Amino acid sequence: MTQRIQPSPPPVVAETLAEIRASIVDSRKVGKSIGFVPTMGALHAGHVSLIERARSECDTVVVSIFVNPTQFGPNEDFQRYPRPRELDLKICGDAGADIVFYPSVDVMYPVGYRTFVEVQGLSDILEGAIRPGHFRGVATVVTKLFMIVLADRAYFGQKDYQQQLLIRTMTTELNIPTAVVTCPTLRDPDGMAMSSRNAYLSPEERQRGLCLSKALNLVANQVEAGERDILKLQRQLCEQMAATTGISVDYGVIVDARTLSELTEAVPEMVALVAARVGTTRLIDNRVLRLA
Amino acid sequence: MTQRIQPSPPPVVAETLAEIRASIVDSRKVGKSIGFVPTMGALHAGHVSLIERARSECDTVVVSIFVNPTQFGPNEDFQRYPRPRELDLKICGDAGADIVFYPSVDVMYPVGYRTFVEVQGLSDILEGAIRPGHFRGVATVVTKLFMIVLADRAYFGQKDYQQQLLIRTMTTELNIPTAVVTCPTLRDPDGMAMSSRNAYLSPEERQRGLCLSKALNLVANQVEAGERDILKLQRQLCEQMAATTGISVDYGVIVDARTLSELTEAVPEMVALVAARVGTTRLIDNRVLRLA
Repeated sequence: MTQRIQPSPPPVVAETLAEIRASIVDSRKVGKSIGFVPTMGALHAGHVSLIERARSECDTVVVSIFVNPTQFGPNEDFQRYPRPRELDLKICGDAGADIVFYPSVDVMYPVGYRTFVEVQGLSDILEGAIRPGHFRGVATVVTKLFMIVLADRAYFGQKDYQQQLLIRTMTTELNIPTAVVTCPTLRDPDGMAMSSRNAYLSPEERQRGLCLSKALNLVANQVEAGERDILKLQRQLCEQMAATTGISVDYGVIVDARTLSELTEAVPEMVALVAARVGTTRLIDNRVLRLA
Repeated sequence: MTQRIQPSPPPVVAETLAEIRASIVDSRKVGKSIGFVPTMGALHAGHVSLIERARSECDTVVVSIFVNPTQFGPNEDFQRYPRPRELDLKICGDAGADIVFYPSVDVMYPVGYRTFVEVQGLSDILEGAIRPGHFRGVATVVTKLFMIVLADRAYFGQKDYQQQLLIRTMTTELNIPTAVVTCPTLRDPDGMAMSSRNAYLSPEERQRGLCLSKALNLVANQVEAGERDILKLQRQLCEQMAATTGISVDYGVIVDARTLSELTEAVPEMVALVAARVGTTRLIDNRVLRLA
């Protein structure tokens, strides 16, 4: 994290549409640039890195904290998803956020809500195939948040690779005037990609969960060493994870980094995407593979 | 039409996203209000009334002319829909438009386009039941146009009642910062609601098509005279149209004006909606029924 000389003042907290719009309107009027970091809270160093990046590039920094019900399936962890409000607000302030938008579900989805955004193709593969409706919920809430904040730039982590690609596609195709900026995944010293859901893991589960980043490292090293057989690499990716006790692999693929299309041969920019369950917790991770 | 003392200068015509954004950015910077009239061209006095309304309420008036392929079904009139470019541009200028956005299909839907907006419930009844996918196309193109223009106010005709309600719902629910203004249907002296599609009608077909506005008048008069039996009124609406030779009625209903829900008894604000085919041309019309 950046060393801050002076502690930042606490951020303005806006809970209603009127409050968030009022808090932004002055910045916009005087031509200040607005940076936006949409989150579901339970903030960790990965989120902090996004807020700090926004702080370094924009005049006004807005963070939203909203656990979005429409992106959770009926048997997923919407209820138990962590919501440490006071801690999250402090983290936002310390990282340099000016404004935190903290809406209730009613503010975002009033009774009778019925408008949804769908990104065909990208929504129903990989994470979307396993979590039906998930990306419709993501595309809808991000469109809404983008409309509310009308930021110049919005910051997402590469950790959710398919999500950032879907949001990037949607933003371009709907002509939303916000630039989508994807920032590197932050990792703990053991290699684990930071995620709010890591808090669910027992120490044993966490050890097992390391197999995702290890499998990604393995194929990245192989590609660096010259391996170009995609199907072989993909097989190794899955086998490496599946070899770990107590891991149930959802997928391990190497696909086109720009489209997520399946590959039969290597292309200059690929991405290895992995998803697996450890106990009741789902973990995902990814690594971009560039041919030198 | 308003009497204009001096002829307006011809509008700026923008064909690309860069052009339309550049042409609007200066107005926005100096805090001018922007009025927007999205159209499919083939402009008639109804469109002119929308442009003039925008002119009277906003500093900068933007009209878009785009025959939107995604709202036409495979057997509909996308190809034959009239596109009188030079005449339309002259009409825009005369009505006081500052800027006309005239994009190609490629500008609006680049190859591989895949993001769509759906308003559940309102999309699949009435016009939506007869024209599957129509309102998904409308919601998508209007979201895109709204994002491109970022107007303060956007103007629609009441003639397309379900469309304006769907756009109003979508705009509110997606938190798009544009106010939707619905303007009265303009009619020819014989009562026919103005529509670009009226140009398809032969003189005989046009005579027959008058049965829509006549049927709406009939039920409006009945309601004014105290009739409150919705099912009886609805029956009369359909019978009045069906009595005309060469008319094929798609629907004639009296529904809640705010939700389009079916009614079993009268409510303070209702709308009678009719749709029928004359030859190969579909006509729609409506009338809001208010209990005194």
